[in-house]
Amino acid sequence: MDYKKAGVDISAGEEFVRLIKPEVRKTFTPGVITDIGAFGGFFQPDFSGYTRPVLVSSIDGVGTKLKIAIELERYDTVGSCLINHCVNDILVCGARPLFFLDYYACGRLTPSIAAAVVTGMVKACRENGCALIGGETAEMPGVYDVADFDLAGTVVGVVDHEKIVNGSAIEAGDVLLGLPSTGLHTNGYSLARKVLEGRMHERFEGLDGSAGEELLKVHRSYLKVIEPFFGSPELRGLAHITGGGLMGNTMRIVPEGLTLDVDWQAWPEPVIFDIIRREGEVPEEDMRRTFNLGIGLVLVVEKSAADGMMSRLKSNGENAYIIGSISKL
Amino acid sequence: MDYKKAGVDISAGEEFVRLIKPEVRKTFTPGVITDIGAFGGFFQPDFSGYTRPVLVSSIDGVGTKLKIAIELERYDTVGSCLINHCVNDILVCGARPLFFLDYYACGRLTPSIAAAVVTGMVKACRENGCALIGGETAEMPGVYDVADFDLAGTVVGVVDHEKIVNGSAIEAGDVLLGLPSTGLHTNGYSLARKVLEGRMHERFEGLDGSAGEELLKVHRSYLKVIEPFFGSPELRGLAHITGGGLMGNTMRIVPEGLTLDVDWQAWPEPVIFDIIRREGEVPEEDMRRTFNLGIGLVLVVEKSAADGMMSRLKSNGENAYIIGSISKL
Repeated sequence: MDYKKAGVDISAGEEFVRLIKPEVRKTFTPGVITDIGAFGGFFQPDFSGYTRPVLVSSIDGVGTKLKIAIELERYDTVGSCLINHCVNDILVCGARPLFFLDYYACGRLTPSIAAAVVTGMVKACRENGCALIGGETAEMPGVYDVADFDLAGTVVGVVDHEKIVNGSAIEAGDVLLGLPSTGLHTNGYSLARKVLEGRMHERFEGLDGSAGEELLKVHRSYLKVIEPFFGSPELRGLAHITGGGLMGNTMRIVPEGLTLDVDWQAWPEPVIFDIIRREGEVPEEDMRRTFNLGIGLVLVVEKSAADGMMSRLKSNGENAYIIGSISKL
Repeated sequence: MDYKKAGVDISAGEEFVRLIKPEVRKTFTPGVITDIGAFGGFFQPDFSGYTRPVLVSSIDGVGTKLKIAIELERYDTVGSCLINHCVNDILVCGARPLFFLDYYACGRLTPSIAAAVVTGMVKACRENGCALIGGETAEMPGVYDVADFDLAGTVVGVVDHEKIVNGSAIEAGDVLLGLPSTGLHTNGYSLARKVLEGRMHERFEGLDGSAGEELLKVHRSYLKVIEPFFGSPELRGLAHITGGGLMGNTMRIVPEGLTLDVDWQAWPEPVIFDIIRREGEVPEEDMRRTFNLGIGLVLVVEKSAADGMMSRLKSNGENAYIIGSISKL
């Protein structure tokens, strides 16, 4: 018995590293310190301009969206979903990303597949100005099937303490603005896959491509859209709509005694959600707490500033909607 | 069809969070900012005393050691292995841990099992003075079998730039000190499991307990032992012995033109390794590049300081060994 026969191929790991190394370097921002150590990722943050810098981090995966990537043998998008998801999770506190580390675990390491996954991460890291400074690739026969893998990662970002966005200033009368999602993002895939099992190549009416292609659409990052509003006191809260849906996620930042009035007709729901609802006979309550239903980010905005903010969003090409308001319980 | 029938139980997730919340708070150090945001983990580092603070991070998992925890239904140790592994990965650069985030993915979430895993993390976080400030729990039916799970996480720590330990000052004549491991730590489990398949309850001669119990021994942290030497110029390099073994990992920090002379008889090899070697007829080369063989951390020390350092280590109760030296190629 040796390590390779036991299912762990060290040379595949080395080939993978050789493939991705030049790609990963493309994400390096000025804070990255290279060639200084063999273990760990080094980042020297530039906190000039910050009064009281606070590190904000989040760890997440992409859930069973991976299974669709595997079924379609399309591996270059889920990495972007992972980065963008994590970046959104910290931008809702007002934080900008600094660096990212990823965890890729699989049944058997195929260097070209793992490298395609990293390509997606590199693309999104560059778009978000976030350096990919570390990663772990684990071959775990017996935990994962040969073709399966899991993907997770951690983003670390920074926000000035006084500029933390946390919803504490939210008042009755504040307006909810919704920004469109690109589809399911990374939530509700276990349900969607169950409903559309064996039908990933089907072309349902109203979709651009197959069901599988629709479900693989990249989880978008809202960083570029939201960054200009960082520090504006009229922006009182931000919620990234993931598992738990629009209500569940937005309620996490709403102070006690207040609630949300959401006009569920205020935005056009992407067709894929109705396909899932219809084909799976999924109760509306489950639809709403599982999926984003077309809104990926919610801004809670002081009433008098709402129109101005809508104009600024629209002039930046963002198709925002007024989707409701805050009211007393 | 609804989310629960599709294999994702949101209420189990909520119960899990309820179980672990008071535990996790026990890890909070002064830098943790609580109750300020619903998304992300907040940490305000105190960099007073640092001239040029550099963040050092590492992401890792515990590999298929998990499968033994699952087979033995002993869930409270692998979390400690994860934390200690990651802490060691950054302490070899001279960094102290600040905070940790974990990723727990499973086929079906059993709150009591997941909570036991977190208990192990909490224990090790407290021992290392590292705050557990975030985590993700993912239920991924179809990727993981019902009883299976994976566990990974990211540590973020800090080191002053001028005190980074990276091996660059290593010279011919430097001495290698080895610190004992507690067993396999977290490497080589796919091979060990293959060799000892179906024999986890067997009591081999020379072991305190069953083979499974031996294999579950906690990956130790070397932070407390090494911290007193941070900043000492005589400590020229540190290597955490993981996958790749003693040679592979130590060579990563040795400057070009130099190599290691290791006396493989200089320390007592724990019995478990010879059981694996014998039962699996594993070639010595595979043993050496897969397992730590009893040395979990290597210090590369200036020759004239070696005896003094040995005394200090021994007086701190650490059973260190002189295991070799650096020589010209």
